[in-house]
Amino acid sequence: MAEITESGLVEVFDRVQALVHKTPVLTSRLLDEMAGSTLFFKCENFQRMGAFKMRGATNAVQRLSKEQLKKGVLTHSSGNFAQALSLAAKQAGAKAYIVMPDSAPMVKRSAVRSYGGEIILCESTIEARERKCRQIEIETGATFIHPSDNLDVIYGNATATIELLQEQPDLEIVITPVGGGGLIAGTALAVHFFGKSCITIGAEPAIADDAYRSFISGKIETNVNVNGNQTVADGLRTNLGKHNFPIIRKYVNQIIRVEEAEILSALRLIYERLKIVVEPSSAVALAAVLNSPQVFKGKKTGVILSGGNIDLREILKRF
Amino acid sequence: MAEITESGLVEVFDRVQALVHKTPVLTSRLLDEMAGSTLFFKCENFQRMGAFKMRGATNAVQRLSKEQLKKGVLTHSSGNFAQALSLAAKQAGAKAYIVMPDSAPMVKRSAVRSYGGEIILCESTIEARERKCRQIEIETGATFIHPSDNLDVIYGNATATIELLQEQPDLEIVITPVGGGGLIAGTALAVHFFGKSCITIGAEPAIADDAYRSFISGKIETNVNVNGNQTVADGLRTNLGKHNFPIIRKYVNQIIRVEEAEILSALRLIYERLKIVVEPSSAVALAAVLNSPQVFKGKKTGVILSGGNIDLREILKRF
Repeated sequence: MAEITESGLVEVFDRVQALVHKTPVLTSRLLDEMAGSTLFFKCENFQRMGAFKMRGATNAVQRLSKEQLKKGVLTHSSGNFAQALSLAAKQAGAKAYIVMPDSAPMVKRSAVRSYGGEIILCESTIEARERKCRQIEIETGATFIHPSDNLDVIYGNATATIELLQEQPDLEIVITPVGGGGLIAGTALAVHFFGKSCITIGAEPAIADDAYRSFISGKIETNVNVNGNQTVADGLRTNLGKHNFPIIRKYVNQIIRVEEAEILSALRLIYERLKIVVEPSSAVALAAVLNSPQVFKGKKTGVILSGGNIDLREILKRF
Repeated sequence: MAEITESGLVEVFDRVQALVHKTPVLTSRLLDEMAGSTLFFKCENFQRMGAFKMRGATNAVQRLSKEQLKKGVLTHSSGNFAQALSLAAKQAGAKAYIVMPDSAPMVKRSAVRSYGGEIILCESTIEARERKCRQIEIETGATFIHPSDNLDVIYGNATATIELLQEQPDLEIVITPVGGGGLIAGTALAVHFFGKSCITIGAEPAIADDAYRSFISGKIETNVNVNGNQTVADGLRTNLGKHNFPIIRKYVNQIIRVEEAEILSALRLIYERLKIVVEPSSAVALAAVLNSPQVFKGKKTGVILSGGNIDLREILKRF
């Protein structure tokens, strides 16, 4: 697939914007003082179904032919993309098959069902998941859409930053969390085509720093789970993919790692100061801004708050 | 003091609106389904300093003469009004004296100081507090402004509902939490003058139902703290006052009581569904909507979310 052009991204934006929310941009004098920077928080927690994933899922579904839509769409996800694809398919009148590990919590399953997705459970291994997906593809003819390593998904994700740059054209940095790579790749493309003199920075938990290591080694690295010590930013435990990694290498300036305590501290600042509820993954970006003042000092910085789907009791246990 | 007129309230609105935020109104399909009603949440958690109190404080300070402003303003509060009066005084170039019990947490004290208020500590009894206020009044000539039982404060508070009715003129009910009575009295006046066919309802914790009992008995009742069992809605532990009670009796339709478990459940819904952070006191209004479907069914209902100043760790302990 040839690399997308500026006008290609404008087409994506026109296609997606009618079907998703234009999310608000919040500011905070106190957080600006703490950061020594001027921060613009793009609040994808207020997006439909609660996360930026709605943008990529919408674009990917809308790109399908009538014939393809008749056979439905398929993904594997126990997180936001499962809900996003279910809702995007529903609004296109298509069926969504969602492969989920049988360990997925009931609250995630019922969210997917509430958006009309059909859940197919499988064992909690990558092999079982891929086998199940292939099986469904063969049986139904549904189109498989990867949560983060699909170009249409990446381009759809870019629309959050296109909106942000329309509102704040002079941004000098845009920072996003890095999980599977779909958000930062889309963000970097939007910054490349629509920013003036702007760079893209990624933020990642130090104990799940696969993207940081991939960025240095030049090949896709994976996370090694040491002693079952998992990051609170559960959306960021996944690895980069072959479609988004080249975009990230080409257009992302650097990736900053943050400690777990920094994530929780940033999360608390967002709750108490911005008065909004975000996922721990979203707080990773603010944590990076606060732990690297030398990078952000005096800069107009866009911070993508990726989503707000949480189980309050789970979050509160960490404090 | 003669009762305010419609044009009097318009004057208040014109005075206050330039100095406070016009706060957003949020909606949620899921919460509408749960309530069987169409809900419009007026988000005073996004107000300056984080609560509706900024409106009343601003109006009261702006009504003072230059002579009065020179001598400063004075209140007793360990909560939002302490911060609101400090900030409202600061923007009028006046000094604010804030009498606080010596038991007030450091986080509240430093918030007041950050807005320029001067804190005077006293023992944690009503007598000590009033003695200290009188002493400062005599020493400084500062004007005492009560947090909830002052007509200018009440009129200022009305501006939240005036804004809401400008955006949603067809509201049939507006519901607010009831603490000291300053918010619901202002709300009821706004509904009376600017609503079409709209009523005002109050919501109160069952274990601090002084307003409910006052409404029935026709005189101001106080809360009896049984076994130290205090409501999580800490902003609602205060009693009504002689200025707001007559307005409440005249213009409020009813007061609904809610249990502590209902408050926490509504709080969680606001966090998880609206994705915003509010104080437990704000959740009392939604809790009442959900526990009394017979009152709200099919009605367009405005819900005033009074504020968002919380200590996340304090909230955590309750879940």
